Amino acid sequence: MRAINLDYGAATPVDPAVLQAMEPFFAEHYGNPTSVHDLGERPRLALAEAREKVAGLLGAGPEEIIFTSSASEANNMVLKGFAAAHRSKGKHIISSVIDHFSVLNPLRTLEKEGFTVTLLPVDHHGLVDPEQLLQAITGETILISIQAANPEIGTLQPLAQLTAVAREKGIPFHTDATAAVGFVPLNVQETGVDLLTLAGDQFYGPKGSAALCMRRGTRLLPLLEGGIQEKGRRAGTENVPAIVGLGMAADLAREMLAERSSRLSILRDSLQKNLFAAVPHLHLNGHPHLRLPHNLHISVEFVEGEALLMHLNMAGIYVSSGSTCTSQALKSSHVLQAVGLIPELAQGSLLFTLGTGSEAQDAPYVAEQLSRIAAQLRRMSPLYQKYLKEGDR
Amino acid sequence: MRAINLDYGAATPVDPAVLQAMEPFFAEHYGNPTSVHDLGERPRLALAEAREKVAGLLGAGPEEIIFTSSASEANNMVLKGFAAAHRSKGKHIISSVIDHFSVLNPLRTLEKEGFTVTLLPVDHHGLVDPEQLLQAITGETILISIQAANPEIGTLQPLAQLTAVAREKGIPFHTDATAAVGFVPLNVQETGVDLLTLAGDQFYGPKGSAALCMRRGTRLLPLLEGGIQEKGRRAGTENVPAIVGLGMAADLAREMLAERSSRLSILRDSLQKNLFAAVPHLHLNGHPHLRLPHNLHISVEFVEGEALLMHLNMAGIYVSSGSTCTSQALKSSHVLQAVGLIPELAQGSLLFTLGTGSEAQDAPYVAEQLSRIAAQLRRMSPLYQKYLKEGDR
Repeated sequence: MRAINLDYGAATPVDPAVLQAMEPFFAEHYGNPTSVHDLGERPRLALAEAREKVAGLLGAGPEEIIFTSSASEANNMVLKGFAAAHRSKGKHIISSVIDHFSVLNPLRTLEKEGFTVTLLPVDHHGLVDPEQLLQAITGETILISIQAANPEIGTLQPLAQLTAVAREKGIPFHTDATAAVGFVPLNVQETGVDLLTLAGDQFYGPKGSAALCMRRGTRLLPLLEGGIQEKGRRAGTENVPAIVGLGMAADLAREMLAERSSRLSILRDSLQKNLFAAVPHLHLNGHPHLRLPHNLHISVEFVEGEALLMHLNMAGIYVSSGSTCTSQALKSSHVLQAVGLIPELAQGSLLFTLGTGSEAQDAPYVAEQLSRIAAQLRRMSPLYQKYLKEGDR
Repeated sequence: MRAINLDYGAATPVDPAVLQAMEPFFAEHYGNPTSVHDLGERPRLALAEAREKVAGLLGAGPEEIIFTSSASEANNMVLKGFAAAHRSKGKHIISSVIDHFSVLNPLRTLEKEGFTVTLLPVDHHGLVDPEQLLQAITGETILISIQAANPEIGTLQPLAQLTAVAREKGIPFHTDATAAVGFVPLNVQETGVDLLTLAGDQFYGPKGSAALCMRRGTRLLPLLEGGIQEKGRRAGTENVPAIVGLGMAADLAREMLAERSSRLSILRDSLQKNLFAAVPHLHLNGHPHLRLPHNLHISVEFVEGEALLMHLNMAGIYVSSGSTCTSQALKSSHVLQAVGLIPELAQGSLLFTLGTGSEAQDAPYVAEQLSRIAAQLRRMSPLYQKYLKEGDR
């Protein structure tokens, strides 16, 4: 049986060139970059090189890159660290209803500590309105944190418009760009963001590799305190192999971004076309074109996404029912609620994310399988039976 | 020129068996353990297996293991998470003056938030007195955090005695066992600790691999909030290769601990004997026998540790002047101050930590080199000239 991974959003394989770059740093150049003797030299140079590469992908300076262990850590660091550093200036933070839980949950914690949080709504495509952002800003606002791309529905926010509002009001702007980096151009100068979160394992770097890009002059208190690593901004022995891998992945992404994205969006558009041609009762979620090139989010009417996922899995097709971070919790997605999808459609959701292994021939095969599986499941749906009867009248 | 690493405390090479165990999880079994489809299966099983291995090393249950990205993260998580969860019960935390900065710095932050911190003193060997711990406990005390072994002077604390005091008073006990795990037996039942921090890169596991062992029923608020990973106790995509590597390193440590420690302590004792025979004006720091088997900390009178380190480095001998986390800061060590070492001796300190590559023939060679280098440097020391003159009288 063919195995087709359409869940690259959950994990990407480490690129062979990335793994090759990492390998010498496990057992050969295993020194601690903080050591002043020769064993620290190669790791230290490798860190500096990786820092330049990650900075290069974002149009930032190397000293603006802080390596972390995950995007979640970077998001927690920004929100808690910014709140701690600037609470005397004000206690209001703005985000969006569809941001990731590693932004939303720290904000809930901050609310318990006396902060006020405004979560901006989104339209039915998942877009935040810059005008609503402007209206939400108060004299107490110290930070705006709005994601670059939604990892479920794929919608890309109008970052430059949002940061223009923030800049006009003098409020620092953070974006969780975890789902976006490596797939859409994200230059911190052009987009005007002050803080940006990225994760290597989203674009063929290793797990455990991530970074926060922080504009010169931005101040936050460290979340991980201890040693002097990352100029005192993030304590803990540097994960040299992971950082080297992230650097290489960033370099590859910079070189291949246009080609990679173009290839993926063509394959994605073909998958979408095949699915909509083969499977009745489909709904496209997210923005029709302002979305990630490798993302396709649909709802299949009259059936449960989890059942679809299980049956597709048996057919060797790996998809997600939504955000991986919550998929085992089987909760209905806060994102789909926020875009106003009715529960009957939200529960029939499938998220396809394409990647290096995706091929043109996958689309008709996946469409055929989904058509077969959806038809089977639909027949068992009382709602579908009711729909058929009403259709008969 | 021979290269002799005597700074394994700064970093250990990844064991070949550890690297071999990790390798399939970069590009082959790269799935996200949280995925419900088949690609999540192998990584999920690998996580469970690693969790059992780490628990096995400590005599804990697998559900008591929380994987983190570093010991610093685990320490921050304990102190900040415990303070946040139990602040209504009391706002007093006890630690020691020689604990690591990833314990001491979070405590300083907690002090700014209204907590009171007692740092217990140590004797000139670096030992905390259980009687002083008992006296420090108040009705407000919610946590005691005292390291298992000091990463600089190597002193092992009398953990069982200290936890007995804590247990009598009903106060949870955390130990930062980063320097100790893999080298001395650390069973959480026998030592009676409730929370324990360890890091894989101290005992031939990969960088970026660490864990907090937390006794069932202990409660703390997560430091990294977001997804439901680690049962909601630590958000962020699991670093599967690093965790698999940590599991394998824990397994090897459990199997080989006695043999490894015995071999290292014999080599260490030989190094100590050779050094003291060849080099005049040496002082042994830390406890003469209650210390890590691979640790030797000395002070060389009349010379600067940094100069010694640089000259030894030129001779291909890699040592540290103290804790790696602060070595680039070139600050005098808080540990050496705490054990009452006079500044003249503290600044002439050298830390030797032995490891897999250490051999019996290293000792006479290192002693010969240190003797030569110390003699050269000593001659330039005004204090030494003064000492000679006084000796002449």
